Amino acid sequence: MAKKQLDLKVTKNLIFPYLPVLVGCNVGGKPNYITIGLIGWLCYDMMSISVGHRQYSKAGIKENGTFSINQPSAEQIQELDYCGIASGRTVDKAALFDTFYGELETAPMIRQCPINIECRVVQTLTRPMHEVFLGEVVAVHASEEVLGDGVPDITRIHPLFYAPDTNQGKGIAGYWGLGERIARAFEVGKNLKTN
Amino acid sequence: MAKKQLDLKVTKNLIFPYLPVLVGCNVGGKPNYITIGLIGWLCYDMMSISVGHRQYSKAGIKENGTFSINQPSAEQIQELDYCGIASGRTVDKAALFDTFYGELETAPMIRQCPINIECRVVQTLTRPMHEVFLGEVVAVHASEEVLGDGVPDITRIHPLFYAPDTNQGKGIAGYWGLGERIARAFEVGKNLKTN
Repeated sequence: MAKKQLDLKVTKNLIFPYLPVLVGCNVGGKPNYITIGLIGWLCYDMMSISVGHRQYSKAGIKENGTFSINQPSAEQIQELDYCGIASGRTVDKAALFDTFYGELETAPMIRQCPINIECRVVQTLTRPMHEVFLGEVVAVHASEEVLGDGVPDITRIHPLFYAPDTNQGKGIAGYWGLGERIARAFEVGKNLKTN
Repeated sequence: MAKKQLDLKVTKNLIFPYLPVLVGCNVGGKPNYITIGLIGWLCYDMMSISVGHRQYSKAGIKENGTFSINQPSAEQIQELDYCGIASGRTVDKAALFDTFYGELETAPMIRQCPINIECRVVQTLTRPMHEVFLGEVVAVHASEEVLGDGVPDITRIHPLFYAPDTNQGKGIAGYWGLGERIARAFEVGKNLKTN
């Protein structure tokens, strides 16, 4: 396979697809939600979100030291996209959702989203384009409809992915759904064990 | 939607699915690869990987301060799974792949994987279960076959996802493929703009 080195400044491509989420925070005492593509799984009890420096939410997360991560289902595709287009400076995006609070009093969560995670900021990194908030997971909530045997069932969540098209330069990008289950994990690789 | 708070100690569930990758590093001067589920998109020029404390790769990454992230295609599903089962302490996993090096001389990459990212460690976090390596992206390589208009085309990469089943307690988990494109991003949400 011939390899080509990509120009990072042009492509901004790392690994695709992203798993976009709705991040909640209070700004000036009111809930706001923003669509975030850059998230991190750091440990079972730690996640990160990266917020653009100009985003309205940045000040709210800094003010309270808390945020929520809400995983949308395909049913919230319009809301997911809208919260990435509209700014909380001019629009009350929380009006689109039923907001609830959990253990943290300043991390608003979206009842319509199947999975909701409350995080307390433990570290912040300032990068050229983003403020990266590392958050300790305080609590995880799930809609009862998506639970199977007490844990979230991927087939009931209907997760959404984000990826640019090949004609990315023209600004066309899309949301994708989950496909078929291909193989059993910790099993399919056993065929190679004789190597 | 009624919500249930999950027991973090039991479920270890945050957001699913993961996007598992093959992380490469040199250990004692030889390439080794490990399957990693916990990764982070921190900025366009920064990613993280979380390596279990007992993993063979941990010392190699610490020794060199470098690692690679290799995104497998569905064609590498056996290798992806195998590298999560077998340990580099007892098996030469690099024998499964064609290894190449890029700008960093100690971050081996897998030619068969469509996307390869070279990272230099800039910060390390020690969590109870994982060593979290934050890596500045030094270079990104792509197989020419997956490029469309010069950028990676999600439909040619055939990405793999990982998720536990609902009967997770029984140790059954699986790999999933990408589904259909559902909607255009920065467009489908415009319907809500009158709110």
